[in-house]
Order: sequence, then structure tokens, then C-alpha cells
Amino acid sequence: MPRLLTAIRETPLLWLLVFVPIVLVVEVVRPEAHTLLFILSILAIVPLAAMLSLATESVAEKTGDAAGGLINATLGNLTELLIALTALAAGQYALVKASIAGAIVTNSLFMLGASFLLGGMRKHVQDFNRIGARLQASLLFIAVVALLVPSAVATADNAADPAALQQLSLMLALLLIVGYVLGLWFSLGTHKEAFASAGNGGSHGEPLPIRLALATLAVVTIFVALVSHVFVASVEVAGEAIGLSPAFVGFIVVSLVGGAAEFASAFSAARKDRLDLSVSIALGSSSQIALFVAPLLVLLSYIIGPAPMGLDFWPGAIVMMMIAAVSATLLTTGGRSTWFLGVLVLMVYAIFALTLYVLPPGP
Amino acid sequence: MPRLLTAIRETPLLWLLVFVPIVLVVEVVRPEAHTLLFILSILAIVPLAAMLSLATESVAEKTGDAAGGLINATLGNLTELLIALTALAAGQYALVKASIAGAIVTNSLFMLGASFLLGGMRKHVQDFNRIGARLQASLLFIAVVALLVPSAVATADNAADPAALQQLSLMLALLLIVGYVLGLWFSLGTHKEAFASAGNGGSHGEPLPIRLALATLAVVTIFVALVSHVFVASVEVAGEAIGLSPAFVGFIVVSLVGGAAEFASAFSAARKDRLDLSVSIALGSSSQIALFVAPLLVLLSYIIGPAPMGLDFWPGAIVMMMIAAVSATLLTTGGRSTWFLGVLVLMVYAIFALTLYVLPPGP
Amino acid sequence: MPRLLTAIRETPLLWLLVFVPIVLVVEVVRPEAHTLLFILSILAIVPLAAMLSLATESVAEKTGDAAGGLINATLGNLTELLIALTALAAGQYALVKASIAGAIVTNSLFMLGASFLLGGMRKHVQDFNRIGARLQASLLFIAVVALLVPSAVATADNAADPAALQQLSLMLALLLIVGYVLGLWFSLGTHKEAFASAGNGGSHGEPLPIRLALATLAVVTIFVALVSHVFVASVEVAGEAIGLSPAFVGFIVVSLVGGAAEFASAFSAARKDRLDLSVSIALGSSSQIALFVAPLLVLLSYIIGPAPMGLDFWPGAIVMMMIAAVSATLLTTGGRSTWFLGVLVLMVYAIFALTLYVLPPGP
Repeated sequence: MPRLLTAIRETPLLWLLVFVPIVLVVEVVRPEAHTLLFILSILAIVPLAAMLSLATESVAEKTGDAAGGLINATLGNLTELLIALTALAAGQYALVKASIAGAIVTNSLFMLGASFLLGGMRKHVQDFNRIGARLQASLLFIAVVALLVPSAVATADNAADPAALQQLSLMLALLLIVGYVLGLWFSLGTHKEAFASAGNGGSHGEPLPIRLALATLAVVTIFVALVSHVFVASVEVAGEAIGLSPAFVGFIVVSLVGGAAEFASAFSAARKDRLDLSVSIALGSSSQIALFVAPLLVLLSYIIGPAPMGLDFWPGAIVMMMIAAVSATLLTTGGRSTWFLGVLVLMVYAIFALTLYVLPPGP
Repeated sequence: MPRLLTAIRETPLLWLLVFVPIVLVVEVVRPEAHTLLFILSILAIVPLAAMLSLATESVAEKTGDAAGGLINATLGNLTELLIALTALAAGQYALVKASIAGAIVTNSLFMLGASFLLGGMRKHVQDFNRIGARLQASLLFIAVVALLVPSAVATADNAADPAALQQLSLMLALLLIVGYVLGLWFSLGTHKEAFASAGNGGSHGEPLPIRLALATLAVVTIFVALVSHVFVASVEVAGEAIGLSPAFVGFIVVSLVGGAAEFASAFSAARKDRLDLSVSIALGSSSQIALFVAPLLVLLSYIIGPAPMGLDFWPGAIVMMMIAAVSATLLTTGGRSTWFLGVLVLMVYAIFALTLYVLPPGP
Repeated sequence: MPRLLTAIRETPLLWLLVFVPIVLVVEVVRPEAHTLLFILSILAIVPLAAMLSLATESVAEKTGDAAGGLINATLGNLTELLIALTALAAGQYALVKASIAGAIVTNSLFMLGASFLLGGMRKHVQDFNRIGARLQASLLFIAVVALLVPSAVATADNAADPAALQQLSLMLALLLIVGYVLGLWFSLGTHKEAFASAGNGGSHGEPLPIRLALATLAVVTIFVALVSHVFVASVEVAGEAIGLSPAFVGFIVVSLVGGAAEFASAFSAARKDRLDLSVSIALGSSSQIALFVAPLLVLLSYIIGPAPMGLDFWPGAIVMMMIAAVSATLLTTGGRSTWFLGVLVLMVYAIFALTLYVLPPGP
């Protein structure tokens, strides 16, 4: 326990944990204050995500190389997954899909762009042409393409048979999960040397002892689930009150909140001129959403959702994900960055946000 | 003749030649057995394609560098061309277009992905950054773009004037053929050193003597034409019976069958760690379809078809060809491959096949 | 004055200046001869554009590094800007948008392709993998993406609220201008060494003295404005008479005419095996249209236009700009060119022109 308190004291972000009890109390005494609950739940999720990240890494570090890598890779997007699961159980599929699309775009544009900018403010030109970065860019591109093919083809052909599309989504989800398992074998087994450095990068301070880490993981997961519940229950009414569509909230807010801990790692690496690591975190996280989180949600929709969920995104989301994947691939293949490249990538992200805000997709 | 028999005995694939007389006999005695004829004709075309390939290379080898290169480049996709011509004469334009699109996608995704996978199973990481490969990736990208511009623009603008679209297709076909002729001058004339290695790769065993090769070429061409006729006549009814749309048969079945001989060469090169050569065969064959086979079919439709055929593909095919061309270009520009990259590329191909199977394009 | 006459005598192009008085006289005596005025105004704009370019560079050279760079960067597309402004004031928004799209496509495909071809006719293989070229390719790609996001998303989602789209265009225009200003700080301030060579390339002969240059700049600007007025007034009727749509005239004719001076610089550099410089001029000019000219026209439409102009392009233009940006990025990242690559890039440009000619976008 003192170790945990030390970790909290050393990380200013964790002071936000105070909002966890607050949001749960307000939920009980003023359940109709949707906008307040919406804001409080966001403030509470950020530090919980950071703690999840700390606990995951501590467990990973203690359990040795292969198993640790597996834990890191599987639980790396746990916060996004928990929020999406809550939305899935509530049948808010527009929110779920927006958060999948948003996580891919935010990780590959916002995290990459801000890393380029922060790194470029310290160093004139940064090179990052290591094997891992180039390989991961190819993987991300193919993973996003795989995720988008049915949507793109269905949209292009105006196919209108929802049953066939659902069947395709299910088969595709199984295929993507197989791809993900093979990818784990690749990154933790046959080619682990290319991914070695990525493991160290996320550490926020000293790792926790294994028992404490496991307990933290369990307890924090429960709290994230509770707060996610408040968040999802309030988001629709609050969004309407503030003027935000579910697409905007899922795409921008959820992915910025859920990814906060990873951003911290990537930005810190960029400032230390370890841009390879930032690129690896950004691209790896995006690939994981496409190959693991998205298909898992499709499969789970058969169990916990009110109806099966498909992998059909709205056309604007397809365009944005495609642009993000192609941009990330082209820019990281270039292997050279400066602050202005970061500014432009962030600008594209800002334009996406602006577009979603002004032109929310129809129902 | 003994030489030819030796070649057949050494290549297990050629034992399938026994299906050639079978299919022709069955066609006469049971012309209504469409599904049987469909399967038999596929089994018969595979070894005929391999023999065409062997004969073409033997002729090419004997006639010296420049003329040989020309023969190889022009007759390299002869099987696909013969099948498409038969379908063209029968007015099955959906099948023709699907086989053009499928050949480009199959050569650039399936052949490339399987080469990456097979090569990567032998060698940890393979590099293939030779001049030829990078140049050919650029050529393929531009060739596919050139082929797709009218479809993409017409689809985007919902242009509905078929006469204007047909006029554009004709002008474009002439332009692409001019580009192809200039490309031959480039690859066989001014820059032949960059393409030198590709010539040796396709050899299956010892070359045939020139007379035998020419006779084989003539006779096998006739047999391919005969079997193609059976194939095209049976495909529609058989496809319906098995549950395959013409688009699926043209896109997947025809291109896998027609390209069998090239796949054998590319995979054998990949296993020998000559990935440059595999990449060159895959990209070169795709470019040839886009720059030569497709426009030639448009021009010939004015002579042997019931009506002029345009270069307008259905929207899903445009998306798939674009994704294939961009993927092939990005992945080969990276210049480095592992088994998992091959798995992912094959996964995209599988997803295309699945999508076409579940969501066939409307009429 | 003798210096100016010498410059005119040394540059054959400038003999076309004789058409400037001719077109202005014909405009007065035969204002209804639209086709004649259209052709005369094109012939008159070409040498004026060359003089503007000469004067701009002379001023830039005399005012020193930073200010000179700023002038060059801001006035580099002055001719295109003046023509577009005239069309804007006349409310011909289809022409304005076509000239923006056309300038991006013409600069990144025609200028690049012709440079590859001209360079490749002198030298077997040309490498141009300098820092500047690779960086600028990334910048161009991101700039075009930024410009196109609203159109792409709006088209994909069939969003039909023109007021929201206009609001988005305005916010985006402001954002792009901020990006442009930051880009000037980048290319003239923090990273000017990467752009250093570009400054020298455009020189046509000896620079003019500063006073003469400034006077030339002022006088020629007025003449370009006058001739543009004739051009814009005649284009619609003349286009109909010759059979050209406003989209074709704006896309192809205006950008070829307005960019003549830059083409001369880029081609001359390519022939001297300074392909880095050609690529830099082509990509830099395209980026400038996307980041500066296009948003400036949106902002000015609020002041001088009959109604606010948005950044929504017709779908075919979006496809063409996207293809041009991806092609330019992929081809310049490759960093190696030959004559045939130039031929293929020019072929894509020719196909765009053909498509626009045969299938003009609907109103």
C-alpha cells in the first residue's frame, strides 16, 4: 500500500483519482445531472486508465518476457475496451463504432503528430528508421485495410442486405482474431527482437510488486467498469445538452480519455529523442484496436449485446481511418520528422474533429 | 516428343493433362452436366497453363534477348487472355471485367503475400530493395491508377452517359497500349539491365527445342481455347448451382487457375531467398494486365464482342484494385518482409474473396 | 528600361507580350468575339506570368534571405491567384474551384512527370533523395488531405446541410492559413537550410534592379488583372463554342497557362540533372495552393464575391487531387526516376484531361 501511495504521489495525474468517489456519489444522489456526471466521469477515467497501465506493466514485468509481452499487448487498450463493452451492453452501437474508429485515428494521427511536434521542439530533425517502426507501419496499414474492406465494398456497391453484411462481419471478426493471435506469436515469439524496446517505454516510475499489481488491476478494472457505466448512461443526454453528437464523443472524447496513459509514454519518449519508441507505441496501439478490440467487440455483441453488431462503419469514418492509416504509413516510411510535420498531422486530426463537430454523421 | 514427355513426367502438375481429353469428351456426351464440366475444365486448364508457360519460355530463350523478352512479356498472361477472349466472344462482360480485376488483385496480393510467407518461413527477415523491384512498384501503381481513373471519376460524379463513357474507354485503351509499347521499349531496350533477372525465374526444368516449343505453343493454345469455351459455357449455370456469382468466379477462380504457372515460379524463387524475383514476377504480371490485357480486350470487343465493352468496373472492384495497388506499392517500397507480413497480405486477399462470396455485386 | 528590354529579348517567351495590347484593343472594338478574346487572353497571360515571376525573384533576391523567401513563397502563384480572384469577383465559383484543383494536380503530376521525362532523356537513372524533397512530399500529402477532408467526409456521408458545410469551410480556411504561416516560419526560419536550393532555381537570366523590379511587379500585376478580366468574361461563351466545360478550362487551361513560368524553371533544372530542385518546385507550388491560395480565396469570397464560397469540390476533383497527392508522395519517396516513370505520370495527367473533356462534372 505505501508503494501504491508513493506511485500516486509521484504522478500528478493520479491526483485526479479523487473524482472516482465523487462521480459515484453524485450518480447516486443526483442521477439526473447528466452533464455533470459526463464531465466527472471523464475526469475519473483518466487517472484510472493511468493506474491500469501502471498495473499492467508491473504484472508484465514480473511474469517474464513472453507472458509479460502477451499481457501488455492484450491489456494495453483495456480502458477503451471496458468503455466500449459498457456501451455495447447498453446497445449504443454508434458510440462503440465511433470509439473504435476514433481510437485508430487518434492513436495514429494525434499520438504520432504530437510526438513529432514534441520531439521536433527539442531536436532539429529526428530520424527513426529502425526495423520495428517500418515493419509496424506495414502491419498497421494492412490491419486497417482488413478491417475496412467490407465497409468500403458494401458502401461502394450500395449493398443493402444487412443479414449478409452481418454474416460477413462475423466471419471477418474470426479471421482478424486469428491474425491477431498469429501476430502475438510473431511479436512475442519468432521476431521478438524487433519489438523489444517497446516494452520498456511505458513505465511510469517503479513497477509495483506482483501481488499489489494484480490486486490493483482487479480493483481498478472494477472501478473503470463502474465509471464507464456512468459515462455511457450520461453521454447521450449530456452530449445533446453540450451540443456533441455520439459520433464526436466516441471518436474524439473517448479515445483521448482512454488513451491518456499511452500518450504520456509516447510523448515522454519523443522528448527523450526516442522517437522509434513513440512511433512503435502509436502504431502498435492502432493495430491492436483493428486486429483485436474491434473483432472482440463484434463477437461479444452476440453474448452481451441486445443484437449482433457488425463491422460496418459510416462512410465518413471509413474515409478518416483510411486517411489516417495511409498518412501514418507514408510518414513513418519516410523515417524523418520535424516539428512542422507534427503540426500538419495534428492539423489533420483537428480537421477531423472539426468536421465531426460541424457535420455529425446521420443516424 | 520424348523431350516433351520427360518434361511432363518431371512436373507432377502436368499429370492433370489427362483432364483435357476427359473434359472434351464429357462436353460431347453430357453437355448438360454444367457443374461437372466446370470442375473438369478448371482441372484441365491448370496443366495447359503450365505447358503454355514452358513453351513460351523455351521460345523466348531460343530467340535471343530482345525478341525473347518481348515474347515473354506479351504471352506471359496468355491463359488469362484466352479465357477472357472466350468470355468476351460470348458477351459475358461481367466475367471479363471480374477476371481483369481479379488478375490484378490476385497477382499483387496473393502472389506477393504467399511469396512473403513462404520466403519468411525459411529466412528470418528478407530484404529485396533492388532497383527493379522499387521501379516496378511505381509502374504498377501508376498503371492501375491509369486504368481506374475513368471508373473512379464516373462513379464519384454519378455520370450516367454510357456513350461518353464508352468513348472514353476506347481513347483510354489506345493510350494504355501506347504506354505498354513504350514500357516494352523501356524494359527490353533502354533499361533492360533492371529487368534482367526476371527472365530466368520462370523456368520449369530444361527448355524445349525451338520447333517443339513452337508446335507446343500452337497446339496448347488451341486446347486452352477449346477448354475455355467449355469453361465459359458452363460457368454461369454451374456457378448458380454451386452458389458462386460470376464476379467471384472471374475474380478468384479464373485468376488462381490462369496464374498457376506464374505462382509456381514466384514461390520457388521466394523459397530460394530470391524475393526480388518473386516481387518482380508478381508486380510485372499485374502491370501487364492493366496496361496490355485490359485495353486489348476493350479493342477486341469491337471486333469479336456482341457490343463494345468499356473500362467501367463495378465500385467494389475499383476499391479492391486500388487497395491492392497501394498495398503492393507501400509494402515493396518498404523493401523488407517477414512471414507475418505475408500472412496479413494473404488475409486481405481472403477478406476480398469472402466479401465477394457473401456480397456479390449487383447486376 | 534597357535591362527590361534585354530580358525580353533574351527570353523568346516574352515576345508573346505583343498579345497584351492586342487583347485589350480587341476587347474594346469587338467585345462579342468571345472565342478570339479567349485565345488572345491565354496568349497574353503566358508572357505576363513569366514577367511576374522574373520580377518577384528579382525583388526577392534584393531584399535578402528571409524577406525574399517570404516574397517568393507568397507571390509564387500570383498569376493563378489573380485569375482566380477575377473569377471569384464574377461569381464563377465552378471556375475558381476547378482552377484550385487543377493547379494542385497540374503541379504535382504534369510538372513532376515532364521533369522526370526530360531528365530521364539526358540521364539513365536519376536519384533525388535529398532531405528537402522527402520532407516536401510529406507536407504536400498532408496539405492536400487537410484541404480535402470536409469534401470527402461530406460526400461520403451525403451530408446536405450547406450552411454547416460553409461554416466548416470558413473554419478550415482559417486553420489552413495558420498552417501556412507556421510553414513559412518553418521553411524560412527554423529549417531554411532544407529549402535553400529552391530559391535559385527559378531565375530566368539576370535579376532586375530593385526599383525596376518593383515597378514591373506593380504594372504587370495590373495587366494580368486586366487580361484575366477579359479571360474570365469570355471563358464561358468561348468554352461552349469550342466545346470545353468550365471545369476543363479551369482545371487544365488555367493551370497550364498560369504555371508556365514555373514549368520553365522546373524543366530547365531537370535537364541539368538537378531533379531535387524540379521536385521541390513542383511539390512546393502544389502545397502552396492547398495551404494558402485555396483558403485565401474562401476568405476573400466573403468580401469580393457575390456569396461565400466553400471548400467543397465535386467528387471527381477529390478523386483526382487524392490520386495526384498519393502518386507524388509515393513516387518522390522512391527517390529514383527514369524516363518511363515520367511517361506514366504524364499519362495519368492526360487521362485526367481526357476524362474531364469527355465527362464534364454536372452542375
